[in-house]
Amino acid sequence: MKPVGIAVVGAGYWGPNLIRNFAATEKADLRWACDISVERARKVVGAQSSVRVTDDLAEVLRDPTVEAVAIATPPSTHAPIALQCFEAGRHVLVEKPLAEKLQDGVAMVEAARDAALTLMCDHTFCYTSSVRKIKEIIACGDLGEVHYFDSVRINLGLIQSDVDVFWDLGPHDLSILDYVLPDGIEPTAIAAHAADPMNVGQACVGYMTLPLSNGGIAHAHLNWLSPTKIRTTIIGGSRRMLVWDDLRPGQRIQVYDSGVEISDTDDEARREHLVSYRSGDMVAPAIRETEALRAVVDEFASSIREQRQPLTDGYAGLRVLEALTAVQHSLDTQGSMQPLDGRR
Amino acid sequence: MKPVGIAVVGAGYWGPNLIRNFAATEKADLRWACDISVERARKVVGAQSSVRVTDDLAEVLRDPTVEAVAIATPPSTHAPIALQCFEAGRHVLVEKPLAEKLQDGVAMVEAARDAALTLMCDHTFCYTSSVRKIKEIIACGDLGEVHYFDSVRINLGLIQSDVDVFWDLGPHDLSILDYVLPDGIEPTAIAAHAADPMNVGQACVGYMTLPLSNGGIAHAHLNWLSPTKIRTTIIGGSRRMLVWDDLRPGQRIQVYDSGVEISDTDDEARREHLVSYRSGDMVAPAIRETEALRAVVDEFASSIREQRQPLTDGYAGLRVLEALTAVQHSLDTQGSMQPLDGRR
Amino acid sequence: MKPVGIAVVGAGYWGPNLIRNFAATEKADLRWACDISVERARKVVGAQSSVRVTDDLAEVLRDPTVEAVAIATPPSTHAPIALQCFEAGRHVLVEKPLAEKLQDGVAMVEAARDAALTLMCDHTFCYTSSVRKIKEIIACGDLGEVHYFDSVRINLGLIQSDVDVFWDLGPHDLSILDYVLPDGIEPTAIAAHAADPMNVGQACVGYMTLPLSNGGIAHAHLNWLSPTKIRTTIIGGSRRMLVWDDLRPGQRIQVYDSGVEISDTDDEARREHLVSYRSGDMVAPAIRETEALRAVVDEFASSIREQRQPLTDGYAGLRVLEALTAVQHSLDTQGSMQPLDGRR
Amino acid sequence: MKPVGIAVVGAGYWGPNLIRNFAATEKADLRWACDISVERARKVVGAQSSVRVTDDLAEVLRDPTVEAVAIATPPSTHAPIALQCFEAGRHVLVEKPLAEKLQDGVAMVEAARDAALTLMCDHTFCYTSSVRKIKEIIACGDLGEVHYFDSVRINLGLIQSDVDVFWDLGPHDLSILDYVLPDGIEPTAIAAHAADPMNVGQACVGYMTLPLSNGGIAHAHLNWLSPTKIRTTIIGGSRRMLVWDDLRPGQRIQVYDSGVEISDTDDEARREHLVSYRSGDMVAPAIRETEALRAVVDEFASSIREQRQPLTDGYAGLRVLEALTAVQHSLDTQGSMQPLDGRR
Repeated sequence: MKPVGIAVVGAGYWGPNLIRNFAATEKADLRWACDISVERARKVVGAQSSVRVTDDLAEVLRDPTVEAVAIATPPSTHAPIALQCFEAGRHVLVEKPLAEKLQDGVAMVEAARDAALTLMCDHTFCYTSSVRKIKEIIACGDLGEVHYFDSVRINLGLIQSDVDVFWDLGPHDLSILDYVLPDGIEPTAIAAHAADPMNVGQACVGYMTLPLSNGGIAHAHLNWLSPTKIRTTIIGGSRRMLVWDDLRPGQRIQVYDSGVEISDTDDEARREHLVSYRSGDMVAPAIRETEALRAVVDEFASSIREQRQPLTDGYAGLRVLEALTAVQHSLDTQGSMQPLDGRR
Repeated sequence: MKPVGIAVVGAGYWGPNLIRNFAATEKADLRWACDISVERARKVVGAQSSVRVTDDLAEVLRDPTVEAVAIATPPSTHAPIALQCFEAGRHVLVEKPLAEKLQDGVAMVEAARDAALTLMCDHTFCYTSSVRKIKEIIACGDLGEVHYFDSVRINLGLIQSDVDVFWDLGPHDLSILDYVLPDGIEPTAIAAHAADPMNVGQACVGYMTLPLSNGGIAHAHLNWLSPTKIRTTIIGGSRRMLVWDDLRPGQRIQVYDSGVEISDTDDEARREHLVSYRSGDMVAPAIRETEALRAVVDEFASSIREQRQPLTDGYAGLRVLEALTAVQHSLDTQGSMQPLDGRR
Repeated sequence: MKPVGIAVVGAGYWGPNLIRNFAATEKADLRWACDISVERARKVVGAQSSVRVTDDLAEVLRDPTVEAVAIATPPSTHAPIALQCFEAGRHVLVEKPLAEKLQDGVAMVEAARDAALTLMCDHTFCYTSSVRKIKEIIACGDLGEVHYFDSVRINLGLIQSDVDVFWDLGPHDLSILDYVLPDGIEPTAIAAHAADPMNVGQACVGYMTLPLSNGGIAHAHLNWLSPTKIRTTIIGGSRRMLVWDDLRPGQRIQVYDSGVEISDTDDEARREHLVSYRSGDMVAPAIRETEALRAVVDEFASSIREQRQPLTDGYAGLRVLEALTAVQHSLDTQGSMQPLDGRR
Repeated sequence: MKPVGIAVVGAGYWGPNLIRNFAATEKADLRWACDISVERARKVVGAQSSVRVTDDLAEVLRDPTVEAVAIATPPSTHAPIALQCFEAGRHVLVEKPLAEKLQDGVAMVEAARDAALTLMCDHTFCYTSSVRKIKEIIACGDLGEVHYFDSVRINLGLIQSDVDVFWDLGPHDLSILDYVLPDGIEPTAIAAHAADPMNVGQACVGYMTLPLSNGGIAHAHLNWLSPTKIRTTIIGGSRRMLVWDDLRPGQRIQVYDSGVEISDTDDEARREHLVSYRSGDMVAPAIRETEALRAVVDEFASSIREQRQPLTDGYAGLRVLEALTAVQHSLDTQGSMQPLDGRR
């Protein structure tokens, strides 16, 4: 396939990773790096690079070789930049979260739809080998009915003044949940609780709870103040249960036979036995270690060439944004349950 | 000190453990085992034992050598039995939860207070070396201000038809929280979310959130459907953080220097560094492995002889019961936040 | 089957465990506990027990209801006691090691053979669910050819003055190796290295190496001075590899697909990939947790009634004893390789 | 300080890492990359780089700006290249092992000494934060007397046809041991055992044992056929014990209070207690994560400018080489103990 001509806008925290991956894949032809600091853009692409740099998005959009734009600027600028790109007939890949405000995200999705252009949201985790394997395991029915999804994503992070722990870490779990849940099951609402024990003006410890449409439940513990780093998700199913420990190279995913028993018995010996340790077989499938962001840029280019929706499209970005917006409403009302419109 | 004459009522699931420990300690003189099944009581005390058995509580209470009664019967029977004992001038140790209904618990506490008798609740975990060490570490100020308390208590359990996961596992975390929090900090409310994905008529997966009076937060994940057993509590403080992993013999408690940094910096390299792995020292103090229940029965006897409140008195039991009752209200109202009266 | 009449000789460290298990099984009828201290024997069986106690072995052997004797006395006394039992026509179960001296062990095996009586050695680990599962996995060919057997059995132990680390911990690994190796593969020799860094007069840190007849190798690290307790055995095979971590309840055995590749390549990228983390599937089979010693006493009784060799017979005990004896010769000669006669 | 003019010879497996680090440090001025394939050298330095490339060492040595040469070629070529460099008055950094044959290593050390030039051996592990911390802990006496050093360095590696597991992995442990042992304690001999169970013509599983001059012992398990990757070293001391788990980011080093007790007691309860789990405090000191190779190239440059012996000089390289050579002799003679000349 002919490489897709690409411009990356934003060369700050995440932009350099996009630039590196677009430069490396044969599916794309990286043409521009655009940043409010031309120096920073130059530094990122390298002194001798043939990739052009600018601080003027209009200049980028005048270049007919640019077919698509990847946006890695602060969230509040995603919408105006994306809309300008759609206006100019360019496809767009945008960092998570899709936008800062829900109506901005809606505007982006509608603009892309109306212009028949691709809008993809960079939910990077959905492109890891682990999450793809999890989706596969759920989709083929190995877990049976999904009962619960419990994620712990905690570490000793840098407390930021402009974003809380939900906006920082939440998109990961919300996008993964959105991606791996099978068709027909979706979160119906969300409630959130949080604390700002150091009085920094932002939630640093947070919990999100999402009832699922099939009676199950999803939950995430997000925390910047944990002494140990944990990245573990448990997905309980009627047939099997899955533990994803992202910090365990070589054995990230474990699939357990479900050993749940229902009993009215008053047989104490049996009860004591059952609450000790489980007794089903466990399988840890081999997972190939790959770079997720490379899969992201490849999917973006392929979906454009194949004229199809990307794996994590604007609607996926919108669902995550809707949940994040609802989190704020819930926090403002003592953790009240906020309905989610669900999948469009 | 003169051993305290004891009768144990209830020889089912937990009673035999009480019987074994009361028989072993020199602080008590086990006189009776009382159960609706005399055979079961006989079997538990042993054929040749001098401990007498009966199915008639009145017979026990007529025996002047019985100074105190330990109640290990179903929760709904705690109140009538305890009140009968107080009526007869006996001290009472009661299994958790204190009672099934809040007003019953209140009646028990008031009856004990009016009769100037001891009412102790068997919050066993508060008598483990680990929890005592945690209380000590917090009390001496090593953690600084307590920021959060996060507990995960999950395993593949036997699903019961008469009790949900909150009443089964929740008393552990609620009583530990009640015990280790320093004076002046207390939970002000509680919210709960749960799922019953297998339609057994009881919550099998549950989450409790308790805002703390100092702006911190407490949370527990309780789950009967987890493929792996986890018993981990993280307590974050302003100076240090503590991880209690109860399944790690020889290193159950780890205390980390807090490495939290607050920054407005846009320095990405630094940010990336900070979100990788922490860098403070960690200390795992030696913990002597002891049997908690032995400490429970000893505390019961000692508090009677010394005419003082036991470590986990009726009020502690009442606070746990109040929280459990509020959990049900919260579940019935979509996870709404329920106020707690706090410490009396 | 008719219960086998049993006497236990020795009520010190291990004897009480035998007594408890013989008392519990329906396959045996425990008649006597014999110890040089009658009081100790009485204390172990319990005041009201119908099991008789004595310090006189002859008295035991005069009792016609005693069909078999379990010996849990110090190793140096195993041979005289066992020979006396065989003389009296009784079957014998003896604690590990079989005897203190090789010729004593040989005499025991020959006496049992000549009298057509059962001689069983209590290699307890061979009766655990884990080791039985390992034997099964090897026997059915799942591992392919056995390449190596590597055991680490270390902890912070009590240093004893009368036995070194090889005699204390070595019988476990030697008996397990003897038990799980498939027919046709056996250790051909043994070499040992050790240190006594605290000058207690006994090896406290030791290593044993046993070349296998098929070109493979077995090795054990035995250590009383380790700050952490490790009980891990890795068995490498041509098709799969097995890791047995005896301190990991619920997942003691892990079986990995072998991912070994042979290559002359100078392809550095590939090399780097290969030395990072493996990529085959792993399965952790369910292991039922049972008490090994109960299986020991049941096997003893069954083998007597069924008139067959027990699973771990006198010859197995002799092979372990031969290896321990050779360890001492090796230590005395700078770790020289000592031949083993192999399986008789 | 004035940067040291550097040429790197060999751009294969490890050379690119040296090139990258010499290019990055301000202490060096990378002038040349020399490889038998000029193309490979060019590719490694980058198309636009000002670093010159050649396949002719003589050309490099004619350049007066080159003060020092880093050699990353196959071991058999280390000696001739190093000697040519010394001849030309250049300092030399050489990859491990120092040479393929002991006499070649001796010739290199003598040539450097006679020409008063620096000869440094790249024992990379000695420059990691972890190993430096270990050396510091031992040097300040925190461990007390060193009792044993036990290393397990195993993984599923690529089996190579031109080198065995000792030459591949052994230099790491031998150089670390050489580096961390305090003055006055040294290995006095070495014995090795190995297996080649797949008949590839090279030892794939190996064990090395080194008695220490103070009565202690060092041992390493090296294995290419392990299903799991382990990189753990335990160092036992009279006061404390240290566990270095190099695969545990954030807690690589753990220091335990020694809890060893010596006893003749026959008190079984106490014995059972002691062999269960240890009970001393443990401290995991913070370790800054740094790139070891950067410290290697900095030390090389600094030692040249400061006209002092580098941390891991030619003699250190020679001691490792002597041990590797003795390993082969030991393997050829059934694991016989081979004396080591010790520290020169």
